[in-house]
Amino acid sequence: MKKLEKITTQEENFAKWYTDVIQNGDLMAYGSSKGSIIFKPLSFGIWDNIRLILDKEFKRIGVKNVNLPLLIPESLLNKEKNHIDGFNPELATVTEVGGKKLTEKFFIRPTSEVLFGDFFKNEIESYNDLPLIYNQWVNVLRWEKTTNPFLRTREFLWQEGHTIHSTQEEAETLTKKMLDIYTSFVEEYLAIPVVKGQKTEHEKFAGATYTYTIEAMMKDKKALQTGTSHYLGQNFTKAFNITFKNKENKLENPYGTSWGVSTRLLGALIMTHGDDRGIIIPPKIAPTKVDIIELFAAKDSRVSEVASQISMLLDNEFISNEIDKSNKNAGFKAANSEIHGTPLRIEIGPRDLDNDVVTFVRRDTLEKHQVPISNVLQMTKKLLDDIQNNLFNQAKLRLINSIKIAYNYDEFKQIINSGYWAITKFCGDSILEDEIKKDTGATSRCMPFNLDIKIQSDNCFYSNKKTDKIVIFAKSY
Amino acid sequence: MKKLEKITTQEENFAKWYTDVIQNGDLMAYGSSKGSIIFKPLSFGIWDNIRLILDKEFKRIGVKNVNLPLLIPESLLNKEKNHIDGFNPELATVTEVGGKKLTEKFFIRPTSEVLFGDFFKNEIESYNDLPLIYNQWVNVLRWEKTTNPFLRTREFLWQEGHTIHSTQEEAETLTKKMLDIYTSFVEEYLAIPVVKGQKTEHEKFAGATYTYTIEAMMKDKKALQTGTSHYLGQNFTKAFNITFKNKENKLENPYGTSWGVSTRLLGALIMTHGDDRGIIIPPKIAPTKVDIIELFAAKDSRVSEVASQISMLLDNEFISNEIDKSNKNAGFKAANSEIHGTPLRIEIGPRDLDNDVVTFVRRDTLEKHQVPISNVLQMTKKLLDDIQNNLFNQAKLRLINSIKIAYNYDEFKQIINSGYWAITKFCGDSILEDEIKKDTGATSRCMPFNLDIKIQSDNCFYSNKKTDKIVIFAKSY
Repeated sequence: MKKLEKITTQEENFAKWYTDVIQNGDLMAYGSSKGSIIFKPLSFGIWDNIRLILDKEFKRIGVKNVNLPLLIPESLLNKEKNHIDGFNPELATVTEVGGKKLTEKFFIRPTSEVLFGDFFKNEIESYNDLPLIYNQWVNVLRWEKTTNPFLRTREFLWQEGHTIHSTQEEAETLTKKMLDIYTSFVEEYLAIPVVKGQKTEHEKFAGATYTYTIEAMMKDKKALQTGTSHYLGQNFTKAFNITFKNKENKLENPYGTSWGVSTRLLGALIMTHGDDRGIIIPPKIAPTKVDIIELFAAKDSRVSEVASQISMLLDNEFISNEIDKSNKNAGFKAANSEIHGTPLRIEIGPRDLDNDVVTFVRRDTLEKHQVPISNVLQMTKKLLDDIQNNLFNQAKLRLINSIKIAYNYDEFKQIINSGYWAITKFCGDSILEDEIKKDTGATSRCMPFNLDIKIQSDNCFYSNKKTDKIVIFAKSY
Repeated sequence: MKKLEKITTQEENFAKWYTDVIQNGDLMAYGSSKGSIIFKPLSFGIWDNIRLILDKEFKRIGVKNVNLPLLIPESLLNKEKNHIDGFNPELATVTEVGGKKLTEKFFIRPTSEVLFGDFFKNEIESYNDLPLIYNQWVNVLRWEKTTNPFLRTREFLWQEGHTIHSTQEEAETLTKKMLDIYTSFVEEYLAIPVVKGQKTEHEKFAGATYTYTIEAMMKDKKALQTGTSHYLGQNFTKAFNITFKNKENKLENPYGTSWGVSTRLLGALIMTHGDDRGIIIPPKIAPTKVDIIELFAAKDSRVSEVASQISMLLDNEFISNEIDKSNKNAGFKAANSEIHGTPLRIEIGPRDLDNDVVTFVRRDTLEKHQVPISNVLQMTKKLLDDIQNNLFNQAKLRLINSIKIAYNYDEFKQIINSGYWAITKFCGDSILEDEIKKDTGATSRCMPFNLDIKIQSDNCFYSNKKTDKIVIFAKSY
């Protein structure tokens, strides 16, 4: 396999650092076609954990998993105009089979609102059949011009939830609840603090009434959208003529939502926590929580014995761990553990064993601890907790310290050019938002829900129109 | 949702019975494009269980999950000639994006040998890097002319394992081991007995050196291939120029395998166990093992109380169960439980409660048991075991009684025309196999490993050439 190479530092070139660490950390390889990537065992292991944990959360609130087809007939996609306009340029299109031209074209799904619309139509008759709360874990394709591994790839993996309800209130409550589930999950498991909020008209999902989002800040302070939850109103149910008999026995169109998170969460995780030695995986989501490294095992049989004992001890408590059995030297093994982001490593050597201790090394702070063998389990649990909390707190501090108030366009440009997020009063005019984007490279991220920042102005920083809308702008991935 | 309709009986029309039960049992809906289906929560729940259980078995022997792209560039597929010849007519082809023609065509993967080949090439240098034992759970597409839900759909879900090894022996051992894992899983969890064997040259996988298969018998006695494991030799590693330095420090091509099971297992399960009331799901794979039905709950508050108690009791032992809370009558609820194939239902009514009993109804035999409330947990476990075993034994009996020896072509045709499987000595000539297929509609299923049937002949039943090959022929899905 690939040798460990020198990693570009974050300060030198953050973008280069990112592609260095994901390749050296065996997270991905480039696929056979442009803009595609291969998820290697480590990155797919993290995604598998994300799926397992989120799926349990979904099921707790009654979500059911289904699986809909990959291909959308051309005639179907044309039914919701805003939606097709939003996705049309990115649609990979199947026009032939075995060299023969098809009579109808098929699009590879970029998302599945229209497929669910067509499905839901035949599934309901009365309010008794509602709500339908469905989800699928699938691949989707959007033919992006510029790509970046995990963050923006032509094909990506995601879950997409699609629901219909008999009342607007119930649908809006679910839209909000999914945002909360995403927030808790991303903050608790991925240790990534997020700003919750609503997208402006300019940035909302094509076909939605409104879009909620969670926005995270990477180490270079750029913003990354890490999850969205859309309230669709009756937009799709009217377009697809989905009706049900309500309690007054009248035909009505149900109210819809859709929501998703994708493998871009892996990019978020890497860019939030990684350092110049490689990636750092938060313990709660790590496929391997502890690497066990033997020093001078050939010279002292106690080393392998204690390594096996500790491994079994951790196995019994369901703390995933691996003993590095390769024939490399200890320095290589330590660097290898670091580059793969394993949160904790335990080094076992003859000198330590003479004193009945082993050495713990935290991946986040690189601190070393001499730990009595009798105390290994307790200390492992404590340090894994500490690492999880420390990663979150570091990221939270960075986020809070990097959001600056802009009262006018000069201040705004200075904040954006310094790489920070600008929070400001903004009228929400889509044409002006476009102007700002072209001029500064910043896009509106959201109208935040959970930020306690007061802005002493009643007017839009750009148009000077009176407004009470608070909007965050930032450069983003 | 759809009303319960009369189901065509198996005797009337088995094919119609099949599509009746899968629709009435809420297993699937037809998708928006021809030959595609939607997995509804029940069928996807079974597939999710298959994935969970098999994935654990895979990991036990060191399989690692990865994820490779959906699209294959045209240039890549042309590298292994037998392989492309086998799949070419079925390839869905992406030729344009957003209305603009692409400079290179892309095929939607029908299977991923060539993508793994291209990936493996860059992953290995020496024997130290081998074996690579990878698997992915993904969707694939084959543009089939005639389709049948679950059994043969244009898109299907599957796992595909792809491995490379430094020795032929190691690769062949793994090919065999995967067949054994599939056999154990399908027999133990899906309660489907199978014949293990090797495919003839005519039926082997395009690009393989040889193919192992497990073949199951449906209730109409047709054969269904339910899993395959291919030894690829160096066919793909040579075509893709994959090399490693062996222990003698010489460059060598590694030895490959690939293996898979698909959502066709759902079709196998339905056609092996279902009856005229609907599907029957073996307890070990059932998303809901027990349906709890309340009788006259509005008139007697004890009914709902006992239902909740029993539900909690089963929850605590991880026996999945559901109380039917709908406002339908008890007869409807019982039929509904039957049509959805829940292996066991517990009916709770006032008259039974006066005697401190509840009524158990087995889905397989429809037998009723009055069970003392104090004995509910024990009886649930016992009956679920009994149902699992009974389903397997019934199917095994049918399989054994339906394989008949053919010593000549007349006997062969009589056996095939009566719907049975013919076991016979066959020379293995592909041209003759084609003739037999055209004449009788039967295909060779496998050269069986695990059948104790003696054939008193040294000559091919068709060509009369001397041969020691034993081959099973049957009509199949």
